[in-house]
Amino acid sequence: MSGSVVVAGLGPGDPMLVTPEVQVALDRATDILGYIPYVARIAARPGLTLHPSDNREELARARHALELARQGHHAVIVSSGDPGVFAMASALFEALEAGAYDGNMDIRILPGITAMLAAAAKAGAPLGHDFCAINLSDNLKPWSIVEQRLRMAARGDFAMAFYNPRSKSRPHQFARVLEILREECEGQRLVIFARAVSTPDEALRTVTLEQATPDMADMRTVVIVGNSLTRQVGQWVYTPRAVTASGP
Amino acid sequence: MSGSVVVAGLGPGDPMLVTPEVQVALDRATDILGYIPYVARIAARPGLTLHPSDNREELARARHALELARQGHHAVIVSSGDPGVFAMASALFEALEAGAYDGNMDIRILPGITAMLAAAAKAGAPLGHDFCAINLSDNLKPWSIVEQRLRMAARGDFAMAFYNPRSKSRPHQFARVLEILREECEGQRLVIFARAVSTPDEALRTVTLEQATPDMADMRTVVIVGNSLTRQVGQWVYTPRAVTASGP
Repeated sequence: MSGSVVVAGLGPGDPMLVTPEVQVALDRATDILGYIPYVARIAARPGLTLHPSDNREELARARHALELARQGHHAVIVSSGDPGVFAMASALFEALEAGAYDGNMDIRILPGITAMLAAAAKAGAPLGHDFCAINLSDNLKPWSIVEQRLRMAARGDFAMAFYNPRSKSRPHQFARVLEILREECEGQRLVIFARAVSTPDEALRTVTLEQATPDMADMRTVVIVGNSLTRQVGQWVYTPRAVTASGP
Repeated sequence: MSGSVVVAGLGPGDPMLVTPEVQVALDRATDILGYIPYVARIAARPGLTLHPSDNREELARARHALELARQGHHAVIVSSGDPGVFAMASALFEALEAGAYDGNMDIRILPGITAMLAAAAKAGAPLGHDFCAINLSDNLKPWSIVEQRLRMAARGDFAMAFYNPRSKSRPHQFARVLEILREECEGQRLVIFARAVSTPDEALRTVTLEQATPDMADMRTVVIVGNSLTRQVGQWVYTPRAVTASGP
C-alpha cells in the first residue's frame, strides 16, 4: 500500500477561499497534521485522524507526515495561506533532506491564497506593481538580514508585504522596522495594517508611514507598505501599473 | 437598480484552482470582461454577456465595466492568476481615479492563485523564504527600473519570481536580465523555468544560472530564481526557512 504526503494551503480563513484541489485532498486524507488553529478548521469524520501540534514543531510534524506516508497513510499537512510562503512546504523538504530521501514518495504541494494577496484584494491593489514579501521574525535568521532586506526593498522602490511583523516575544523589532522605513522612504508613504483578513475579526487600517505606530500590528496582521507611487482613490489603496521615466 | 464590478482571479488555468468565492461571482455575473483567452475559460449561459477584448486594452476594459455597473449590470473582470499581481485590479482603480470617483460604487477584488505560487508549489518550495515579484516587461516602466530592482533584489538575497520575462516584441531583454544576475549572483544559483503551470502545456525545468539561456523563457513562463541557499532534494527545489548567522 503506498501512502502520500500533501502540503495544502487553507487560505487566510474564509472557507470560500479554499481551492477545490485542496478540498479534494482534505476529503481523501486519512491523517491531517498542522498547527492547532489550522487543524481546528477541519471537520472530523470517520476514517480521519487529526494531529494538531504546537507552533515551532514544524520539523517534527513534517517527519511525522513522512512516517505516516511510509506506513501507507494519506497524510495532509495543513498550512494557513499558501504552504510555500513562510509555511510548511520548506519544512517538509528539510525533513526529506535530513532523512534518507526516498524518490518514490508521493508528495504534492497544493497552493493556497496567501495572506498578503487576500489583504491586498481587500485594500484595493497595493501590490499591483513589483513587490517583496519579507518575514520579519528573526526566529530563524539574524536580525541584520531583515534590516538589509528592508533597505534593499526600499531602494528598489518595491511595495512590501510583511509577515509576522510583531509578537509578544519580539515587541520592539517592529518599531525598528518603522525607523528604517522612515530613513529610506518619505513620510507620506502609505502603510496598510490588515488583521485577520477574511475572518470575523478582519480589520483594515491605512495610515501614512509618519502616522504608523508599532502597536498597529500583531501576529495576526499582515503589513503592506506601498511603493513611492501608491495612492488612494476613495477608500481604496492601489499602486499604478505605470512608472514614467521622470518617476523614482 | 444598483450594479457592481468584481475583479476576479481565475488562477493559473486549472479549474480546480478557482476559489469558490470566484465561482459564485462568475455564476452571478451579467457581464464578463477580460483578455480573450481568459474570457474563453468561462462557459456561456443565458443571461450572461461575454466581452472578450485584446491585450493592452486594460483601461478601456475597466471603464467599460464601470459603465456597465452604472447601468445596473453585475460586471466581472476576469484576470489570470491573482487580479492584484500585474493584472486588472490596478487598471480598475486607475479608471476609477480618472473618471469621477463614485464612493457608492459596489466594487470587490477577489484574490486568486497567482502564477508564481502555483509554479513554486509544482517545483517544491523555492519561495519558502523572503522573495520578490518583478514584472520584466518595460511596456509601462523604463528598463532602468527593472535593472535597479534586479540588483537590489540580488543584493538583499531575495528569491525572485519574474512575470512576463520575454515576448516577441522584447526578445533581447531577458538575455540582459541573465547577464545582470550573473554579475550579482554565483553561477550555481538555481533557476526554474515554469511554463503554463496547471494547464495541459505545463513544463518545468530547473537549471543553474550558468546554464540558463534566454530561449528557456517565453510569455507563458514564470521564472523563479532561488536565493543563495536554495537547493535540490531529489526532483524538488526548496529554500530553507533558516539563515544561520554565518550565512550570506
